[in-house]
Amino acid sequence: MLYEHLSETCLAARIGEGGLSDEALARALEAAGPSLAGLRAAREDGSLPLLGLPGRSDDLAACRPVAAAYRERFADVVVLGTGGSSLGGQALAALAGGGAAAGRPRLHFVDNVDPETFGTLLAGLDLTRTGLLAVSKSGGTAETLAQLFAILPALEAAAGAGDLAGRVTVITEPGPSPLRALAERRGVPCLDHDPGIGGRFSVLSNVGALPAMIAGLDAAALRAGAAAVLDQALAAADPADAPPALGAALSVGLLGERRISQTVLMPYVDRLAAFALWYRQLWAESLGKDGAGTTPIDARGAVDQHSQLQLYLAGPRDKMFTLVRLDTAGAGPSIDPGPAGDEALSYLKGRTLGDLMDAMARATAETLARNGHPIRVIRLARLDEEVLGALLMHFMLETIIAADLLGVNAYDQPAVEESKVLARRYLAGEIQGRAP
Amino acid sequence: MLYEHLSETCLAARIGEGGLSDEALARALEAAGPSLAGLRAAREDGSLPLLGLPGRSDDLAACRPVAAAYRERFADVVVLGTGGSSLGGQALAALAGGGAAAGRPRLHFVDNVDPETFGTLLAGLDLTRTGLLAVSKSGGTAETLAQLFAILPALEAAAGAGDLAGRVTVITEPGPSPLRALAERRGVPCLDHDPGIGGRFSVLSNVGALPAMIAGLDAAALRAGAAAVLDQALAAADPADAPPALGAALSVGLLGERRISQTVLMPYVDRLAAFALWYRQLWAESLGKDGAGTTPIDARGAVDQHSQLQLYLAGPRDKMFTLVRLDTAGAGPSIDPGPAGDEALSYLKGRTLGDLMDAMARATAETLARNGHPIRVIRLARLDEEVLGALLMHFMLETIIAADLLGVNAYDQPAVEESKVLARRYLAGEIQGRAP
Repeated sequence: MLYEHLSETCLAARIGEGGLSDEALARALEAAGPSLAGLRAAREDGSLPLLGLPGRSDDLAACRPVAAAYRERFADVVVLGTGGSSLGGQALAALAGGGAAAGRPRLHFVDNVDPETFGTLLAGLDLTRTGLLAVSKSGGTAETLAQLFAILPALEAAAGAGDLAGRVTVITEPGPSPLRALAERRGVPCLDHDPGIGGRFSVLSNVGALPAMIAGLDAAALRAGAAAVLDQALAAADPADAPPALGAALSVGLLGERRISQTVLMPYVDRLAAFALWYRQLWAESLGKDGAGTTPIDARGAVDQHSQLQLYLAGPRDKMFTLVRLDTAGAGPSIDPGPAGDEALSYLKGRTLGDLMDAMARATAETLARNGHPIRVIRLARLDEEVLGALLMHFMLETIIAADLLGVNAYDQPAVEESKVLARRYLAGEIQGRAP
Repeated sequence: MLYEHLSETCLAARIGEGGLSDEALARALEAAGPSLAGLRAAREDGSLPLLGLPGRSDDLAACRPVAAAYRERFADVVVLGTGGSSLGGQALAALAGGGAAAGRPRLHFVDNVDPETFGTLLAGLDLTRTGLLAVSKSGGTAETLAQLFAILPALEAAAGAGDLAGRVTVITEPGPSPLRALAERRGVPCLDHDPGIGGRFSVLSNVGALPAMIAGLDAAALRAGAAAVLDQALAAADPADAPPALGAALSVGLLGERRISQTVLMPYVDRLAAFALWYRQLWAESLGKDGAGTTPIDARGAVDQHSQLQLYLAGPRDKMFTLVRLDTAGAGPSIDPGPAGDEALSYLKGRTLGDLMDAMARATAETLARNGHPIRVIRLARLDEEVLGALLMHFMLETIIAADLLGVNAYDQPAVEESKVLARRYLAGEIQGRAP
């Protein structure tokens, strides 16, 4: 039923000079059948814990006291982590807005190891009123441990060593790891990262839910939205009636039939910019292997009309587009030029900023379609926890099904190990390496 | 001489299984000869005003009193504009850091028309201490005018209508336009946008320089860095000795010989994230026409090793890579695990956050090269106005030469007009359109 708020117009992706033929779509949809059946079975037998998350509440109960204490005690909360340990939280926190609102901590997601950024952040924090959350599934991520070692001395100096337990929380897998060992040594509480849920699929777990709850969001509503999408997709008798299967079939079909090698996600909602970055990891890391995959591109409407639209419209025909529109008609401040206004601006008369955003989204979608580019539009009547949860589940399912259609494993990322090992050897001084 | 700080290792882009053959590179470089000659001629005869900017100071003198007054008077400065009217300023302002430093205004670049973002920003500003800068080359950009109409009533209410002149500055082309008419009606001072410099090439003009000066940067040093790169490129007898020509030849050569349709710019420096977005517009809008062009992709090191590297290494071989490294070895806080540290973390012993960033950049570059992906590395010994100016000029020249090699006009963007017209007609109520 969430699809009332998430209706997709996929038609333009199928027809038009750059679109997908009915035959190719039918073939891809048929191939998606076994994938959906596999998801149904996995939900039944619990072999894919992601699918069980929407029905759980025990793990949220474990987050609740931590979130409440952080909200009560801290002006700032620093979330350490990178990749899937950070992007989900960022996508959720963006929904709560910039943190200027009274009565809740500002969230700072530190996902890089740039010393300049780190120094600037530290200089701006009152560490006596700052809480820390460190997230690493394996417990051995070099960046996250480095962030922690870099900030702990300052935090201890400001707060007193004995008090670290209430100021730091760790999310990591059960079992021994450097991060868990450190936490135990310092008396810092650990929440368990589900070992069966990879980082890029962890947004609905405590990895995303705890920062979201600190930001004041309703994590149960997120899961309710996700549950509605999951239920509808798995209940569909025909893959064409399961929107994530349809989306995956379009992507993979367009790659095969039209060499569409790039997929652009372009929300016309600033609060979904971080969501698009989350999606960019999900799609790239799940599908980009064995020479397969397409390149996910995050774009921002309406801004990128003044940056990327020229290329999208008139460059190589190698992209498909997903526009996400929020119904903003009539919202926001007036942009009426007023009685003394310029005649050339009469089109703004009686309009609001939200009307303009709405018109831009409609015009771009229409223009891409008219020019024969494969496009679909996801329309949101509102944007809240339930709708965002629905979007997150939709794209996780679409990605898993696309991986099945491409014949790759959605859940691993074997290629990145080589550079990790190399970086450690450089640091350990084992090899000098030529400096490229 | 700036290339001391901007040395490129292009070797890996030429050799290896995914690289460019010597023959194809030689052909592309030969074709770049006339392009360089054209740039030389254009500098001589003044037909490309961009090339004259590094030698000018009159326009900076006109910016100086405005910047000084804004710095003296305002706690916040809102820069209204979109696309090329905003991205250059954002790229420069990022060099100055987050605005937490004492004694200078915080800069807010408003480049979208999201009513929610707008409302959040307004709610957080003390408008009695807020200055405005509105930038639109044509003076008719719908988004920028809408932003202005949305904020002016609030600014007037806070500041008193008579005082608008000192609080608002406009940058727009000479000649009649809605923005200039509005400015004249309200007694707001206008600085001239050079009509011969398109938005995406305007970063070194007052469009970028004024926000940069408000942020406390040295605009003359920016231009000095740009001049050094320009001089070296145009002085080169052989295109192979002109780094922007070499870069363009590699891109276009790889597209032709290897179907490399995407180009990834990945700085391992957070302060260059906005620079990568600036480049993304420059490359896309300049080359994406007549079915030509390659897709520019902005990535962030080291973060995107946990998001995109799997795809980059093991997905389709359709990308070339430009990594930008800053020498950060030894910089930043210690990440030493300490005497009680885990044995598995011994590689962090005695290291700093900057060492880790450095090792990540080296390891990723090396791994991409080892796996036969075309890659070049730009190494920066330091990052200041001079080096950033050099980078900006390098990529503008590379883009212009690439356009020549592709046979497209680098300076227009004809395709975006259709959706602009359509948006205005939706707003004017002339057509309802089907709502996609």
